[in-house]
Amino acid sequence: MRPTKRDGNLLERARAVIPGGMYGHQSTARMPEGTPQFFGRSHGTRVWDADGNCYIDMMSAYGPNLLGYGHAGIDAVIREQMALGDTMTGPGPVMVDLAEALVGMIGHADWAMFCKNGADATSMAMVTARAHTGRRKVLIAKGAYHGAAPWNTPRPAGTLPEDRAHIVYFEYNDLQSLTDAARAVQGDLAAVFATPFRHDTFADQSVLDPDYARGVRAICDAHDAVLVVDEVRAGFRLSRDCTWDSIGVQPDLSAWGKVLGNGQPISALLGKEHLRAAASEIFVTGSFWFSAVPMVAALETLRLVRETDYLEKLTETGTYLRDALAKQAQSHGFGLRQTGPATMPMILFEEDPDFRFGYHWCRIAMKNGLWLSPYHNMFINGAMTLADMDEALEKTEIAFLDLKKNRANVPPVAALMPKAQLAIK
Amino acid sequence: MRPTKRDGNLLERARAVIPGGMYGHQSTARMPEGTPQFFGRSHGTRVWDADGNCYIDMMSAYGPNLLGYGHAGIDAVIREQMALGDTMTGPGPVMVDLAEALVGMIGHADWAMFCKNGADATSMAMVTARAHTGRRKVLIAKGAYHGAAPWNTPRPAGTLPEDRAHIVYFEYNDLQSLTDAARAVQGDLAAVFATPFRHDTFADQSVLDPDYARGVRAICDAHDAVLVVDEVRAGFRLSRDCTWDSIGVQPDLSAWGKVLGNGQPISALLGKEHLRAAASEIFVTGSFWFSAVPMVAALETLRLVRETDYLEKLTETGTYLRDALAKQAQSHGFGLRQTGPATMPMILFEEDPDFRFGYHWCRIAMKNGLWLSPYHNMFINGAMTLADMDEALEKTEIAFLDLKKNRANVPPVAALMPKAQLAIK
Repeated sequence: MRPTKRDGNLLERARAVIPGGMYGHQSTARMPEGTPQFFGRSHGTRVWDADGNCYIDMMSAYGPNLLGYGHAGIDAVIREQMALGDTMTGPGPVMVDLAEALVGMIGHADWAMFCKNGADATSMAMVTARAHTGRRKVLIAKGAYHGAAPWNTPRPAGTLPEDRAHIVYFEYNDLQSLTDAARAVQGDLAAVFATPFRHDTFADQSVLDPDYARGVRAICDAHDAVLVVDEVRAGFRLSRDCTWDSIGVQPDLSAWGKVLGNGQPISALLGKEHLRAAASEIFVTGSFWFSAVPMVAALETLRLVRETDYLEKLTETGTYLRDALAKQAQSHGFGLRQTGPATMPMILFEEDPDFRFGYHWCRIAMKNGLWLSPYHNMFINGAMTLADMDEALEKTEIAFLDLKKNRANVPPVAALMPKAQLAIK
Repeated sequence: MRPTKRDGNLLERARAVIPGGMYGHQSTARMPEGTPQFFGRSHGTRVWDADGNCYIDMMSAYGPNLLGYGHAGIDAVIREQMALGDTMTGPGPVMVDLAEALVGMIGHADWAMFCKNGADATSMAMVTARAHTGRRKVLIAKGAYHGAAPWNTPRPAGTLPEDRAHIVYFEYNDLQSLTDAARAVQGDLAAVFATPFRHDTFADQSVLDPDYARGVRAICDAHDAVLVVDEVRAGFRLSRDCTWDSIGVQPDLSAWGKVLGNGQPISALLGKEHLRAAASEIFVTGSFWFSAVPMVAALETLRLVRETDYLEKLTETGTYLRDALAKQAQSHGFGLRQTGPATMPMILFEEDPDFRFGYHWCRIAMKNGLWLSPYHNMFINGAMTLADMDEALEKTEIAFLDLKKNRANVPPVAALMPKAQLAIK
């Protein structure tokens, strides 16, 4: 990257007081060499690292930034509510407004509960399904990410076999595999987890197949099991409704997070009427789950989702970038695998089994002011314009030229070597 | 309570779109009849319900409000950081400042990790201890609250025996019970959980007994097990350090939440050097765990904790109230059990086995503008003055007079009848 004197100092200090220097999905340990770790500022489509270098940010905070960093309208309601109150001894009236807004927008939702982490919502879905059915087994697609709690974390250090004793895995997008898995636990099947599309790291994405979705619904109906759609990653970037509702397949529960408050900390579990009793039996709570500020931010975000053409813009912007990148790659003799929805770009290189081309290309683009990920899907946000994409494409052009020149000598990815198996799953 | 037209309407609407009308610790379903559910505003020591009635709030948002609602200095750093950035693609430099601040303040802390819920921190403590020891068993005091995740929730609906297969219970403040429990799982003991003092609901609190703490430490050492102190509820209301450090007994890990950012959503796991490797092996993360705004709020809160006499003031205020209440009760012919630290008041009535006196007394005080809890410990905050306590005592005086007059006719508590066993644990 560019001069990173402050970032280097921060990292050195971080290594002294934070295990591993950084943890979780925002650790840059697996990113291209020299990727800065810390950000001093963000605005609209841009982030600035600690040294003041500016980037067009294609990660959008790993999703939460749906409509632009520091969105003026959302910022205004946040500041207004801050003056009234945030974390209080009870929720603000906005909690009811927000639940009503979601019930009004999301096809299958008859009720809502709010929490903080995406994994709070997926865990509550699991517990609600078990409370409702009185059964134990939960079916999850192999490699699908539903959070970092002991029952679903992709890295098992410190967890026990009991944590996932009743989690059963099937192959994504494979109805026969799901049918077999459900049959194997017949009579004890509580829930099937699904995602809007396949969005595993280091792998091609998929799009939602309506036949598959209908098949999953039919299997759940046959077993009287609860269908949970995990919208945490993809919510409101494919549809203004739950993605499965939007193709006519109603889940029983859905988990939401990230985008709900455009960056404010809030997540939600939504559900159908017949699960209301079970949802009111389970005990879940958190110190900040009733805070009013994230709720007003969510209410305003939902209003913008309903009343603006943000989704058409996201789609136009993402498609424009995807098409232009494909042509740019081809003109330099590279093939790209751009899979999944255009609003959540995943860019992998053909003939790049150990990701070295992708890493090099990202590294050069990032050095030139375009923040990318070589292994995680990215997120288009509503502040992005076609002019931003043209600017991004100038930077990817430089990256393609560099990659072409150095094609024969691009080194393997140091960050992936120690735990390649772990990372690639 | 007082006229609650808006609150009543909100509750009716909530019952349509929120399971049970409300969930978790901020549900007023078990509070005195007519307790409002929603708050329109908070400032300093006060909250206003949705109908505009003002209360001196002895709950302090169930803990987070350490220094006063909307504290001007903390509010200023929040607004400043909001203009720079909050939830971004990486953490702000403040994450390092904050980890350094905690390591500098908390005796046993050599490193810090940040999260959102208190239960995130306690769960990470459990997972870290298991990763470090390679063992399974975790000892927890019966009735102690460490979160609402499947492994520790007080209400088991929807959870499985496997969720707590390796959780073992002992009697709080009973070294023999702990010794026996540890011996029973010898060779497989990963961790012992402790709290600064016993703070169960519907029960007398205790104070921290140094002999007990030293005994717990000795048992952990004998078994080479990890000692975890859960400071989520009581942090910085007894000490500027971890409570156990402050009496010379170092835990290996501690979990923090609630007060860290004076109401901003942030929690933390702190640990000793020998657990750093295990903490860096576990995979834990969340969409909003790296947000900069709660971290600047925490940094400023910690500065105020270090540099002001807030703790002496909390203690003075809490002690003043406690002493005056004891006299007031006595003058009306009642005995109060005021247990635990004065900064976290727990007020139960003598000769009140089914809590009806306490509920009635709270109900009258609340009706007159003093927000109390008849079953949960309360929280003194730094905005409270002796004048506020005098004002509170005027309201409790009215409540005592009313209780005295109606002593023979106070009805049992309707809210406790359906699930008395559940509630009282």
